[in-house]
Amino acid sequence: MKRRTFLTNIAAGSAATLVAAPAIAQSQATVKWRMATSWPKSLDTIYGSAAAMCQRIGELTEGKFEVTPFAGGEIVGATQVFDATKNKTVECSHTLTSFFTGKNPAYAFDGGIAFGTNARQQNAWYYYGGGKALIQELFGKENMVSFPCGNTGVQMGGWYRKEIKGLEDLQGLKMRIAGLGGRILTKLGVVPQQIAPGDIYPSLERGTIDAAEWIGPYDDEKLGFNKVAKYYYTPGWWEGSAQITTLANKEAWDALPPVFKAAFETAATEQNLMMLANYDTKNPEALRRLLAAGVELRAFPQPVMEAVYKATLETFAELAASNPEFKKIYEPWKTYLNESNAWMRVADFRLDSFRFSAPKWP
Amino acid sequence: MKRRTFLTNIAAGSAATLVAAPAIAQSQATVKWRMATSWPKSLDTIYGSAAAMCQRIGELTEGKFEVTPFAGGEIVGATQVFDATKNKTVECSHTLTSFFTGKNPAYAFDGGIAFGTNARQQNAWYYYGGGKALIQELFGKENMVSFPCGNTGVQMGGWYRKEIKGLEDLQGLKMRIAGLGGRILTKLGVVPQQIAPGDIYPSLERGTIDAAEWIGPYDDEKLGFNKVAKYYYTPGWWEGSAQITTLANKEAWDALPPVFKAAFETAATEQNLMMLANYDTKNPEALRRLLAAGVELRAFPQPVMEAVYKATLETFAELAASNPEFKKIYEPWKTYLNESNAWMRVADFRLDSFRFSAPKWP
Repeated sequence: MKRRTFLTNIAAGSAATLVAAPAIAQSQATVKWRMATSWPKSLDTIYGSAAAMCQRIGELTEGKFEVTPFAGGEIVGATQVFDATKNKTVECSHTLTSFFTGKNPAYAFDGGIAFGTNARQQNAWYYYGGGKALIQELFGKENMVSFPCGNTGVQMGGWYRKEIKGLEDLQGLKMRIAGLGGRILTKLGVVPQQIAPGDIYPSLERGTIDAAEWIGPYDDEKLGFNKVAKYYYTPGWWEGSAQITTLANKEAWDALPPVFKAAFETAATEQNLMMLANYDTKNPEALRRLLAAGVELRAFPQPVMEAVYKATLETFAELAASNPEFKKIYEPWKTYLNESNAWMRVADFRLDSFRFSAPKWP
Repeated sequence: MKRRTFLTNIAAGSAATLVAAPAIAQSQATVKWRMATSWPKSLDTIYGSAAAMCQRIGELTEGKFEVTPFAGGEIVGATQVFDATKNKTVECSHTLTSFFTGKNPAYAFDGGIAFGTNARQQNAWYYYGGGKALIQELFGKENMVSFPCGNTGVQMGGWYRKEIKGLEDLQGLKMRIAGLGGRILTKLGVVPQQIAPGDIYPSLERGTIDAAEWIGPYDDEKLGFNKVAKYYYTPGWWEGSAQITTLANKEAWDALPPVFKAAFETAATEQNLMMLANYDTKNPEALRRLLAAGVELRAFPQPVMEAVYKATLETFAELAASNPEFKKIYEPWKTYLNESNAWMRVADFRLDSFRFSAPKWP
């Protein structure tokens, strides 16, 4: 109280400009961070969410904490953001940590696991189910802290030039698919291909590859895959959901004052909700347009789903046996997910089941 | 830049305390708000989320915007928070706006609609599907602005002393159920009862009522309903999800500086995600305990679900015919939800279906 009186006196006296000054103290130096993203600006939902997060941090700090987003390649390459953040080439990044399962497959528990947590379950596990401590330990070893900051929901199963009628159609299938999903599919004869986004369309068109997975209807539509591969399969089982993560360099993070940390973290969590809400509005419209354009929507046959689930469990058992960090998360994660599934199917899933098969709203 | 130099000079000179002062400007007067909630503190997930929102606002503003939560009855009664906020008895409140469908049934589009949007779809519709403008117009007429700040997910269908084997078991059933759900059920012979939370248990025990719906496993378990009504039904179809909302008095809101508005709004959205994540961790554990205690879990039979869906559509047609505000939201909402459902069942629902029926993780 004394301080306020004192300051009011200053304001009324010789330093009247203080009254009109912004709310964030002039005593707090402006901090500028660069956020290297893994996205081209054409992925407007994901990149736009990174930009919205930065804007919100600015609003919360009246511009005193200025975080500027950059598209993949502007500062460092899309897949170099991990190392760039670790080494403090940039202060933070915005990425899918599953891109880096080549470094450590345990990162998939952050970015998304085959047949794993859906978007809701991922949040529950991360924020309240013990996930946060395990994930922070993982990235802490790499000199970073992490923040969930978005989700795409379940993605589509990709574009195929020919129908997948059974397991035999997976034999020798050349498919553009990244990460652990590709490793799982090799057990069933698929030949995973690593192809940069810009090369997927011509590769599909020429038949250099037979299939490609990308994201969901909204993003897929823009790349025009339906013109060169008419079968659109669901679901993208290789991620129960795809979480987007902001990584921050640990020294840069530790140097922030608490109020900037709070702004950064809250803005990330806000976008964790908002990105999914945005996709959930854009994808239905895009799916309608794709179907109107003649896309053949298909579901993977049940025997294929059962075989890939079995291959998934085998793959994870191998990873747990060879990688203690994977095992450390996998064990409690399985227990959590089994119990979560037992509840989710009771109320939410049951009502969704009825709603999704009921006659349309009149 | 000149301003910073000027202030540094002050700090170095006669007002050295400025250097150690918090980051939020001393020029910004502290604002204190009271948040009247509709919750007893024993509803620790919902009340705790209100408290966490207030704490976060404090962190984001270094205590300069101080919002204090109060349990229902501490300042005004649990169901008086709407009027208290409208009239600026308090600056804001934390409630389920469905409590106030007696004033205007259109509020159910904010709090939760029978067979309506699930938690994800509610966020998509509200933030990106045109919902926000419609809801703000609705509460704007009542001198308030609103902020989604939580969700329980799909609730349970309540506790029943006898099994519900068919529509005939609804005839004359005295059930504690509030809002539009009760109105819909009257079409099928149910006699809705308005009973305060503390009176539900003795009413069920004495047989004054035959059934009661409350929330979900975690909150229901604490009230011990399983000791007096052993059948626990699912799903709580009268809300596709139950969104919790913060209402703010419009004059109080308009008087806030932009940085406090940003802190308030972001903290609300953060809790919109966090409350659901918290419930999604607590409910599975509680359901396991309830089942171990002998609770008989039951699903409403399909003919009952179909009949209540039909009664829902009839009720909403009546409301749309008599209430222009309901109709104004209902029409675009139906279109949005039909398209959203068409997409949600393609990817997320399909993978969930497989996961929830697959063998447990080993």
